[in-house]
Parts: sequence; structure tokens; C-alpha cells
Amino acid sequence: MKLTFSPASPFARKVRIAAIELGLIDSIEFVPTTVVPGTPNDEYSKIHPLKKLPALILDNGEVLVDSYVIVEYLDELAGGGNLVPASGAVRWKVRSDHSLLQGMLDSMLLCRYENVVRPEALRWKAWSDDHWNRAWKGMARFEQQTEMLSRPLDISQIALTCVLGYADFRFADSGWRTAYPKLDAFHQRMLKRPSVKISQPPPA
Amino acid sequence: MKLTFSPASPFARKVRIAAIELGLIDSIEFVPTTVVPGTPNDEYSKIHPLKKLPALILDNGEVLVDSYVIVEYLDELAGGGNLVPASGAVRWKVRSDHSLLQGMLDSMLLCRYENVVRPEALRWKAWSDDHWNRAWKGMARFEQQTEMLSRPLDISQIALTCVLGYADFRFADSGWRTAYPKLDAFHQRMLKRPSVKISQPPPA
Repeated sequence: MKLTFSPASPFARKVRIAAIELGLIDSIEFVPTTVVPGTPNDEYSKIHPLKKLPALILDNGEVLVDSYVIVEYLDELAGGGNLVPASGAVRWKVRSDHSLLQGMLDSMLLCRYENVVRPEALRWKAWSDDHWNRAWKGMARFEQQTEMLSRPLDISQIALTCVLGYADFRFADSGWRTAYPKLDAFHQRMLKRPSVKISQPPPA
Repeated sequence: MKLTFSPASPFARKVRIAAIELGLIDSIEFVPTTVVPGTPNDEYSKIHPLKKLPALILDNGEVLVDSYVIVEYLDELAGGGNLVPASGAVRWKVRSDHSLLQGMLDSMLLCRYENVVRPEALRWKAWSDDHWNRAWKGMARFEQQTEMLSRPLDISQIALTCVLGYADFRFADSGWRTAYPKLDAFHQRMLKRPSVKISQPPPA
């Protein structure tokens, strides 16, 4: 299998952490890929029309998109029920939490594009404030979910780690550690895992 | 159960179609909800920090977010394996296709926000062109997938219907019917379903 990848992408990082935790990292070839919003990349659009990272290219040529779908696919390859609970109320809680975290990342990337990629004269503060606020309120939600922060490893914890790592990477002055001390303690625990440590984004 | 809803939201429409097809529509109370990017809605943010539609509020007060997660949840309530294949390669194909369609909708909404909601002086054509292009290339991908267009009803077909309905609703001059005649024929077939017909967006 091949995975289109950039070390700066929090979505690609999520799959990388999951692949390490599932013992599948050696069966995936990482393909460095660059995508920039507002700039065409016709070659990559043929693989993934949304021009997003990551995509998993199977050995038969089929392409799976969406970091969550890829993680569930890898989870099934590893026997199933490892990072996504196989049944019960906790399954829906983990999946809904993951979607919330995925949307927080989407909003953080929209903020980043607004503040850095878009020409300066065309920036709209109400837009970036709105999207930052979504991520920030999402963090507040997880700060209160002490059960989620301490249960065995699952995909929502990996996604939360990628959210917090991305906050450090692109919003270093946001002050999330002070505002959310339980998330800070959670992040420090997660950093003890080799999968989390090795996949940290490069210096900003 | 309660579902936060707007008749203009293609994501809420997806859940509504699925609920009708699964025979669950009478067990869901639809709660009209208005969200506008760039404008706070503190009350709704307490339910859903991302301020997105739809969210499913369960009878025990738990909130499930993400139209796909909600549809899989309803599918399980209805016995499972109805709109999302329970196993095999087709399961991953349907889920990956659904994610691609979800991303196409995200891009179409970003286009719409850029062209209509953002103050006119701050619009960036390269951004809206890029996002429209993602949706357009996605349609080209599905135009070629004749197997997907003719198999029994699943969540990827419902999502494709919502993409095409949203194109009619917000991008009436896009010319997708001429460019993609197989999608046009598919959409006409889908419109024969009461669930699809009744859930069409209001006049733009």
C-alpha cells in the first residue's frame, strides 16, 4: 500500500500514528505529496479530486480517501476493534467525537489558509475568528470529558493529539495549555508513545 | 430523537433521505436551526461546537455529530447493513466514495460562502475556482463509475444525489447536466423516490 503524505498534515499524521499502533507501518510506503489551496495540482487531482492528504493507494490500484476511513480500513486489516470500538454506545461516542475533532482540524486549517495563504488584502477577520472559535470551543468540550482522556487508546484520542499538535505547530501563541490544563496533561501522556513522538510536525 | 435541521443544508438532507428510506422518519423530531459562517450562534455552539448541521440529539441527551455517523447510527437502529454494506471490498468503496462526496459538498459550500457571504471586496477568485474545481473533478470521477450509479441504494448514492441537488440549488448555471449526462440520468432516477423528491431544497 502507498499513502500520500506530508509531515505537516495533521490528517496524514493521524493515519501514521494509527499505522504504527496497529503494527502496519512497514506495509505502507509513504509518498511525499505537496498540496496548496488556490494552486492547481493536476497530477494529484487524478488520484484524489479533492486534492487532499492523505489517500491510501491499495495494491490493486483502488484509492481510499479520508483519514478516518483509512484508519478503519487499517484497523480491520489488523483484526478489527482496535482503535474503533466494534459495538455498543462507546462506538458511537468515539465516532462522533472523532468527527468533531476532524471538523476542528478543518476549521484550524481554514484559519491558517485565511491568515497565511490568502493575499493579505483579502482576509476577513470574522471568518478566521469564527473558525478559530469552533476549534477553541471544541477543546473546551474535550477538557470536560475526563473519561475520554483516560480510556484505552482509540481513534478519537489520536485525533485529539493531532489537533493539539497542530495547535502547537501553527498557533503556537494560542495559549491552549493554560486554558485547558487537562488537555495539556493528556498531550504529555500521549507524547510518551513512540508513534506520537516520531510523528510530531517539523519546526514551523 | 431530535435532529437540528435546515431545508437548505445538503448534509441535513442526506440524513432526512436516509431516515425515510430506513423507515425511521417518524421517530425523529426536526428542529429548525440557522447557522451562518462568520456569525456567532452561542446557543447552538453549546450543542455543536462546530456550529454545523445536522446534529442528532438522543433521548438520553447525548449528541451525535456528522451526517455520515448519524446515518450509520440510524442504519444500525434499522438492523444494520441497509445503506452501508456490512463487509467486504464494497464496504470500503462505498465509504471512500461517500467521503469524496462529502468533501465535494464541503468545497461547494466554501465556494458559496466565498461568492455570497464574504464581503465582496475580500473575495479571492483562485480560492473559489480551486474549490469549484474539486467538486467538478469529483463529478467527472462519478460520471465514469457506471457500476456505482446502478447498484442498489446506498449512502454514497444518497450523497451524490445531495451533491447534484445542491449544484441545482446554488450553482444553477454550472452546466453539470450537459457535462455529465450519466449523472443527469442517475439524478432523474433518484428523483422518482419520494424521499428524494420531498427533500429537495427550497427555491433558491
